Amino acid sequence: MGERIHATYWLETGGNPAQAAEVIAGEQSSGTFVALATETPELKARAGARVERLEVIDTASAPSLPSPKVSTRYTRCTLELSWPIENLGPCLPTLMATIAGNLYELRAVTGLRMLDLQLPPSFAAAYPGPAFGVEGTRRLAGVAHGPLIGTIIKPSVGLSAQETAQQVRELVAGGIDFIKDDELQSDGPNCPFDERVRAVMRVVNEAADRSGKKVMVAFNLTGDLDKMRRRHDLVLAEGGTCVMACLNSVGVLGLHELRRHSQLPIHAHRAGWGYLSRSPALGFDFAPLQKIWRLAGADHLHVNGLRNKFSEPDESVIAAARAVLAPVMPEAAMPAMPVFSSGQTGLQAHDTYAALGCADLIHTAGGGIFGHPKGVPAGVEALRASWHAAMEGVPLARHAERVPALAEALRFWR
Amino acid sequence: MGERIHATYWLETGGNPAQAAEVIAGEQSSGTFVALATETPELKARAGARVERLEVIDTASAPSLPSPKVSTRYTRCTLELSWPIENLGPCLPTLMATIAGNLYELRAVTGLRMLDLQLPPSFAAAYPGPAFGVEGTRRLAGVAHGPLIGTIIKPSVGLSAQETAQQVRELVAGGIDFIKDDELQSDGPNCPFDERVRAVMRVVNEAADRSGKKVMVAFNLTGDLDKMRRRHDLVLAEGGTCVMACLNSVGVLGLHELRRHSQLPIHAHRAGWGYLSRSPALGFDFAPLQKIWRLAGADHLHVNGLRNKFSEPDESVIAAARAVLAPVMPEAAMPAMPVFSSGQTGLQAHDTYAALGCADLIHTAGGGIFGHPKGVPAGVEALRASWHAAMEGVPLARHAERVPALAEALRFWR
Repeated sequence: MGERIHATYWLETGGNPAQAAEVIAGEQSSGTFVALATETPELKARAGARVERLEVIDTASAPSLPSPKVSTRYTRCTLELSWPIENLGPCLPTLMATIAGNLYELRAVTGLRMLDLQLPPSFAAAYPGPAFGVEGTRRLAGVAHGPLIGTIIKPSVGLSAQETAQQVRELVAGGIDFIKDDELQSDGPNCPFDERVRAVMRVVNEAADRSGKKVMVAFNLTGDLDKMRRRHDLVLAEGGTCVMACLNSVGVLGLHELRRHSQLPIHAHRAGWGYLSRSPALGFDFAPLQKIWRLAGADHLHVNGLRNKFSEPDESVIAAARAVLAPVMPEAAMPAMPVFSSGQTGLQAHDTYAALGCADLIHTAGGGIFGHPKGVPAGVEALRASWHAAMEGVPLARHAERVPALAEALRFWR
Repeated sequence: MGERIHATYWLETGGNPAQAAEVIAGEQSSGTFVALATETPELKARAGARVERLEVIDTASAPSLPSPKVSTRYTRCTLELSWPIENLGPCLPTLMATIAGNLYELRAVTGLRMLDLQLPPSFAAAYPGPAFGVEGTRRLAGVAHGPLIGTIIKPSVGLSAQETAQQVRELVAGGIDFIKDDELQSDGPNCPFDERVRAVMRVVNEAADRSGKKVMVAFNLTGDLDKMRRRHDLVLAEGGTCVMACLNSVGVLGLHELRRHSQLPIHAHRAGWGYLSRSPALGFDFAPLQKIWRLAGADHLHVNGLRNKFSEPDESVIAAARAVLAPVMPEAAMPAMPVFSSGQTGLQAHDTYAALGCADLIHTAGGGIFGHPKGVPAGVEALRASWHAAMEGVPLARHAERVPALAEALRFWR
């Protein structure tokens, strides 16, 4: 086939960078810690990972991560490796072991973070990618332009199915486009999935019958596979238009299986993203990971939001969102929607739009909607108006002169 | 039910530890960043996570992980939280989102590492645990006492199916108990799974017909679910006695599905363990994670080895191995076998045995066996003899006086 997989890392090493790069390439392909007679030059040429690029960035006097191999100088580099597809075939689970396996444990490594991933077309042939993406989501949600204005059921857990439906009733009446379950709320005895779906969809369907607009509700069906399939079927049967899964709970394998079964868009939550990304010297940027999730079938991907309440910096949020909006590979776009959340209000609309250049996204706010003194309808109107202003290039304060709900929102948003 | 889930963390915070603990408990249950009228005291008492224990360990002047919330003093604590099972039910995927979800991203957190996990009996009722464990593995491998002496096919990738079988032939003739595929080698075009299994099992079965001893080969079937099932069926049909999966590739959901389908022990590889554990201030100890993997069905769990070639310290290796040998919960032992690997020889036998007090384990060596000047049979004999000595309390050098293969091994092991 001749196809190769390329992964790029930020690498820190206390040793010689070129040697460290070769150790990493060896460990992740045909090599091991000791020289093997069976690793012939022919075999290495055929199956060995290749160091494509190694560029020194800077040095430090202390290691970012502990290693028994102590040094006085730690060199940080950009390292690009490539692998022949023949080593593994277009298989996402084995791809994970190849690009994100033992290498993170090596002694020569005192920092390793995956920055980028380029996959050959055979992956797109093996994995269908999102079934709905931007266009399918817009169609089902009845939102042709601008972001889907959304919110999250709160409290995260503890509401009964009926209480959840009551909250949905208020949101639907308020003109919301999109509602999601919390990532903690799947099928607990306090709020059984089936009961919740039936109660919520009764509200959503009644409103759709009246208004012609069906609010998209992402029901969190995270769980074991047979249960996810059964839960999906219930959502579909009740007329629902979206399901939600926690990526780090169901894994690449689980998401792919859900995608094979699903007739609805898959809203993908990143709960656990912190343990994969919080150390700048370890783990992953979201750009490479989200490609894998999209190949496995994610239609919507969480990216936090600008000035969010968590620790993720704005530049990381925007890089993630841009990655989600970019093609998975030149041969297969597999469009998906970034989902902005956490401490969001209309105040982030202009900056978010300016950074992305488009509004193919879901913008969810909790307090930014519920906190509006005139209630949920005014909160939804204000957030939507902010996006109108952003997309029209009108300053928020000026637009507020024409939209009283926005003017009032600007007094409590901060 | 009244059951609660308990998780313990090492926590570092730049703020007041009691406040940080409450923020974490809130984020992972009924709370959010803003006060909600709907989060009533009754709801919080029913669904809220509880701070069970908060003990200050020490303080530092700089944060372990970056946070926009800057402080002059960072307090490190032991934090134990508990959740009512009613929030989620006995569901491993939602458990992950609950105990290892958003909390790692909080601003108040500048370090968070999971140290312990105590699960209530309903999890053991919902998940069967390993089907074979120690006893089933010993029976299938024909090893009643002492460790299974094992090795890994090397080069990791690049050998053809026939070349792999040729290496297996040498190992089987040398008296090995256990052989595993590399985590990079599943079903790549260079060495297709089916061809490899057929070629290897021909060798293994022929030897078993002659000697009555069938070497256990852990075939790496990591991949998408339908392919894993089909590959398992082939291994079973060919008379194989073990399959291997990469945990971080197939996830808890994939492992559970494999367990439901499998009629063979599941050898669980931790590739990627580094990105979950390498920063001391982030991620996981193995003790809590391995409980989840065992509930999902892992029979054998990798733990590195003493004085391994990777960066994991010995105390972490031994803590992991002890955890794998301990019951998952008082009500359900779910015994599994720790697998020692990486830079292993007979020199680690005494220390490993002394630290564990038992030999219900798999000890794999590569160079420690292949490097023996008298060949593979002598390498296997020497490693096995080291364990005899360890279990009998005889010093290695003294035992070597009676075992020439060991005496010779002691001249090249280091």
